Amino acid sequence: MDRLFHPCSVLVIGVSSRPENLGKNIASNLIEFGFEGEIHLFGRQPGYFLGHRIHTDFSSLPDDIDLAVILTPAATVLDAVKACFRQGITRIVIESGGFRELSAAGAELEKELVSFARANGIKFVGPNGISIINRHNGLCLPFMRLSAAEIKKGGLSLVSQSGGMALTYLGLGSSNNIGVAKFISMGNKSCLDESDYLAYLKDDPQTDIIGLYLEDIQDGRRLLSRVAATNKPVILHKSNTSAQSSEIASSHTAALANDDQVVDAACQQYGIFRAKTFRQFINQVKSFSLPLMKGDNLVVISRSGGHAVVAADVADEYGFNLVPFSREFTDFITSHFRAQVIKPGNPLDLGDLFDIDFYITILDQVLQRPDVDGVLFNHVFQPDLEGEASLRLALTIDELSQRYHKPVALCIFTGAQAVNRLKRQISFPLFTEPAEGIEALAVSRDYARRQEKAMPEDLPVRGNYDRQVVTAIIEESETLQEGVLYLDQVLDIFRAYDMPLLPYRLFFSASSLAEIAEPLTFPLVAKVVAGSLSHKSDAGGVRLGIENQSQLQQAYDELMGRFGLLADFRGILLQTQEKSLIEMIVGGRRDESFGPVVMLGMGGIYAEIFQDVALRLPPLDEVLINDMIEILKGAPILKGARGQSGIHRPTLYRVLYSLADLLADFPVIKQIDVNPLFLSESAGFVVDGRIMLGK
Amino acid sequence: MDRLFHPCSVLVIGVSSRPENLGKNIASNLIEFGFEGEIHLFGRQPGYFLGHRIHTDFSSLPDDIDLAVILTPAATVLDAVKACFRQGITRIVIESGGFRELSAAGAELEKELVSFARANGIKFVGPNGISIINRHNGLCLPFMRLSAAEIKKGGLSLVSQSGGMALTYLGLGSSNNIGVAKFISMGNKSCLDESDYLAYLKDDPQTDIIGLYLEDIQDGRRLLSRVAATNKPVILHKSNTSAQSSEIASSHTAALANDDQVVDAACQQYGIFRAKTFRQFINQVKSFSLPLMKGDNLVVISRSGGHAVVAADVADEYGFNLVPFSREFTDFITSHFRAQVIKPGNPLDLGDLFDIDFYITILDQVLQRPDVDGVLFNHVFQPDLEGEASLRLALTIDELSQRYHKPVALCIFTGAQAVNRLKRQISFPLFTEPAEGIEALAVSRDYARRQEKAMPEDLPVRGNYDRQVVTAIIEESETLQEGVLYLDQVLDIFRAYDMPLLPYRLFFSASSLAEIAEPLTFPLVAKVVAGSLSHKSDAGGVRLGIENQSQLQQAYDELMGRFGLLADFRGILLQTQEKSLIEMIVGGRRDESFGPVVMLGMGGIYAEIFQDVALRLPPLDEVLINDMIEILKGAPILKGARGQSGIHRPTLYRVLYSLADLLADFPVIKQIDVNPLFLSESAGFVVDGRIMLGK
Repeated sequence: MDRLFHPCSVLVIGVSSRPENLGKNIASNLIEFGFEGEIHLFGRQPGYFLGHRIHTDFSSLPDDIDLAVILTPAATVLDAVKACFRQGITRIVIESGGFRELSAAGAELEKELVSFARANGIKFVGPNGISIINRHNGLCLPFMRLSAAEIKKGGLSLVSQSGGMALTYLGLGSSNNIGVAKFISMGNKSCLDESDYLAYLKDDPQTDIIGLYLEDIQDGRRLLSRVAATNKPVILHKSNTSAQSSEIASSHTAALANDDQVVDAACQQYGIFRAKTFRQFINQVKSFSLPLMKGDNLVVISRSGGHAVVAADVADEYGFNLVPFSREFTDFITSHFRAQVIKPGNPLDLGDLFDIDFYITILDQVLQRPDVDGVLFNHVFQPDLEGEASLRLALTIDELSQRYHKPVALCIFTGAQAVNRLKRQISFPLFTEPAEGIEALAVSRDYARRQEKAMPEDLPVRGNYDRQVVTAIIEESETLQEGVLYLDQVLDIFRAYDMPLLPYRLFFSASSLAEIAEPLTFPLVAKVVAGSLSHKSDAGGVRLGIENQSQLQQAYDELMGRFGLLADFRGILLQTQEKSLIEMIVGGRRDESFGPVVMLGMGGIYAEIFQDVALRLPPLDEVLINDMIEILKGAPILKGARGQSGIHRPTLYRVLYSLADLLADFPVIKQIDVNPLFLSESAGFVVDGRIMLGK
Repeated sequence: MDRLFHPCSVLVIGVSSRPENLGKNIASNLIEFGFEGEIHLFGRQPGYFLGHRIHTDFSSLPDDIDLAVILTPAATVLDAVKACFRQGITRIVIESGGFRELSAAGAELEKELVSFARANGIKFVGPNGISIINRHNGLCLPFMRLSAAEIKKGGLSLVSQSGGMALTYLGLGSSNNIGVAKFISMGNKSCLDESDYLAYLKDDPQTDIIGLYLEDIQDGRRLLSRVAATNKPVILHKSNTSAQSSEIASSHTAALANDDQVVDAACQQYGIFRAKTFRQFINQVKSFSLPLMKGDNLVVISRSGGHAVVAADVADEYGFNLVPFSREFTDFITSHFRAQVIKPGNPLDLGDLFDIDFYITILDQVLQRPDVDGVLFNHVFQPDLEGEASLRLALTIDELSQRYHKPVALCIFTGAQAVNRLKRQISFPLFTEPAEGIEALAVSRDYARRQEKAMPEDLPVRGNYDRQVVTAIIEESETLQEGVLYLDQVLDIFRAYDMPLLPYRLFFSASSLAEIAEPLTFPLVAKVVAGSLSHKSDAGGVRLGIENQSQLQQAYDELMGRFGLLADFRGILLQTQEKSLIEMIVGGRRDESFGPVVMLGMGGIYAEIFQDVALRLPPLDEVLINDMIEILKGAPILKGARGQSGIHRPTLYRVLYSLADLLADFPVIKQIDVNPLFLSESAGFVVDGRIMLGK
């Protein structure tokens, strides 16, 4: 990978002297950005460009070229790659489009490309992307002209599935004083993908912050393992989240939609900051360009009272604590006021304190206080009169912030041109609205908090499972329609995997009903077992509150009469009935990209309507499961609300571990639902469930 | 009010030739903005400024001055006002601070000011504000220098409680091509407040959009009646929503916090667009600067595939429908593609269609389609090469949008300087991110939809109420501690106001227990009635499921034994027990600013935790109550989910009408809770409740 970003020589394939030729732009960009190496050009027609000869024959090229860039029609790309390989070039950037994202024929071309590369140890970027930039050595390969003055050097590396998005982020970064280290437009990512680039960037000394724009994530587990391995902040803008965007995404970068709930859960679990808009993405990058915010204690200093009120509202929303000032400190400030029309406090309204240089004294004193973790400074100023002093203020704020290792989010409010002027004069990010400044401080605080958070303990010891039972049931059931197991099979599997169950037994004939004995006790529930009855209750296949033998006989006869002739009828399952305690649902499924995912949710009709669920990726531990509980809006109920006691967590842990282990041990299991799981303060048991097999 | 904004002559009081004098800025601003009238100056020391004499004696001033502006220390303001009054001036703008927002002494000064003004028919703006601007006649009175070039003329009028915020909005408007009509910094609004200004602006021909920034709303009902009377869009940024901001807000503009839930409900009910950030406020203003979006059908056109994907995500989130293109139309577009590497659809990725002028042809055809209500156009361009063509594109987009009366949100992505350059060259708003463009279109669609919405029907006829019963109970209870009525009194009041109740009766002695008769029937519930037992169930004061006379005797004895000696014990209330159906809570309270407010929520512990409630301001009608139902997350349950039937709406209407009427008829009632209200598909009844009296 290093050769990709640090080649000594680059060959651009697809250059001609025609005016609209895009290959020329690549060469021009290399020169504009001061590429520290040699440039070679190749095209179908001989010629010259910027003092370089356009070669038409590989034999005239040197044999020590590190990197080739191809921008020729899709149908010709494989030949170009082969020619490169013969020349000893194994690192290639393919910018051409017209592959998998366009048509079946294109997909075929791409497949051939991938297999040739794989067979010959070639690594390539693209196709269908605008390639890569290494801002620190002048390697700038996009096929559109870029200006070095507008792309600052810095610590943000961008990995993007869309070239246009990557360029927008580059521009937004630049106009927000955020410099770039590496830029990667992955295109169809048919050879190298985000996980490969991440593996490289985590050790790249120039990269401090990693920003991703993705339209799909093909191997979520691999990506997450890369994220887990880096200690640099990772920000993800994941789009293509709706039915209406999937078609355009597929024709844009051949992306397939992910389950967005799973993506969200993965981000939460692995500490990825997920951005939903450009604004949020850049704001998160900004937050990491300031020192970290190591606590909740915030001071708001404001040249306008209204801006201070607005800032205090947002501070409250993000859980910041506006620490009170000492009497001594407020007296000190008051003594400098002009008309004595302001009461100083936190937020501090600077009122008629017009001396901008005095603000520095205040800020210095504020930052020195050990109970202050960061500052939001609202600076309203008049461009013409106060531009110079404001620049001094901004520069000193940066200096103080670095000196005390505390973030100061500087929000400025002035004319648009003065904002841009000031931005160009400094090298750290500014904010233009209190909500953005405080949001950035919150991101920073959350990141710092996560760094401190204890790592999960050792993984829990697995239960005492009987795999043979499960294997036997699965083998027996492989011919089932739609892969849905019968309820008794499901419960047998749950029992084999150590889940706590109510006593149950499947009956095939009325004669055996007399055998009801411990552990099966009245009152009983009778459930019809038939594969085609997926919603037993709605179909009337369940009888509750059976108190004695005669009621049992009656219920059995009724159910048999109604369902006994179903083709896939299997029997009547009797189960000891328990009073409903706290009802939960637990589930697991196999995500195409992220593998096993488990779900925890509040049970019952309300919870279904409130969509109150939490997802996590195994392996699980108590810390993760407790996180899931905290995420639920129903958490207070689970922890014990209104004098009720909470749930028995060991039982919940046990059920979730068992469910995750089932998914891990039996790849043929596609989905498991435990619904409901009853939990009291001292125990709990699985009442019903569903298992679906699949490929 | 008209004299305030259209004076023929203005007197500025507080001008001196000292360099730091702020009164001079007022005079300078009047000249800078080309005030169409005469300027007079007044100060303590004689002198001249900008060719005007600084008068030191009112006798040398003419007696036909329309408006005075005062910027002198607080203690001298009343004298200045009196002098103005003697001169015949009854319209005054007071910019000085140091009143109620600062101290008790200041509050006293302000009180005197208000009573003098009231007694003498004087209307004044402020104090403690930066005054007013009428952009259309050059009346520009703020005490800081402003530049006419940076404040465009237009249709937005700003009414702000904070001067700093108003200036920021002015600047943001200007840099987003939003011109201003009137600007009002209200300060402490001790004479004229937002409702007064709104009453004026609704008929002001220059005002198309009204933007409010408020830190408190003292008379919510009055404000809402003004909003209801205008057919111009009203956007409200209401801050001071948290405990942490209330102190600074009070010292900034003497603002008291409102109940933010009530403010939200009032905005929803009266169609006020509430903004939480600068960005959102300006974005909403932008949306009203385009033609209205009259439906859900959106077309996204994008020069970059990634931007198209992101736009489609947001479109989906806001409920827009991306209408498919006809085959004919896509063929037409395809025929213009260069490399045939893009499949055209909606979103339309323009791909390698580089001819900006051809975009116009596409857009024209798209806007002509009757099934298209609006367009989002993502225009990514290179500043140097495509600036000219992009300007042409922008101007034509505006023209087409006006011609077809359909909004086109133009999002541009290019260098920051090029964005600003383009903004200065056009006179309509641009967007810089798909989320903002689509949010603006959604605001516009929602406004258009509301305009179409049928007005509420005639107010429902009130029930057949027995007011005397309620009056008697209230009189009897006026000595109650904390104003909480006994349960039997509450139920008697509910019955007198026509609420459907379960049969109930209060028993004072065991001997009368034998009298249990229709309508009271077993099973019964027994509830202890004692003022001090506010949570009867938690305290063990409720017995459920009493099936017969002997169980009744036992429950009665137990409850008497345990609670009978409480000082405020009143008896045991027996009530027919019903099975719980759908449980709801209904409540009402008197808000200090907005008056009576009613609340509807899902009942039970889950709903309490999920905080699923909706608020509305009476008078109620079926349309409003149905809106409340729709707002609840539990709406599907109320409408009938999972094969269950929904609730009996007539009963719900009846309970809510009755509750609102109680609040309206008896101002001494501070709060009413009906909890729970049981509802089935065919009936419903109030089970328990609480009424609190107060001043």
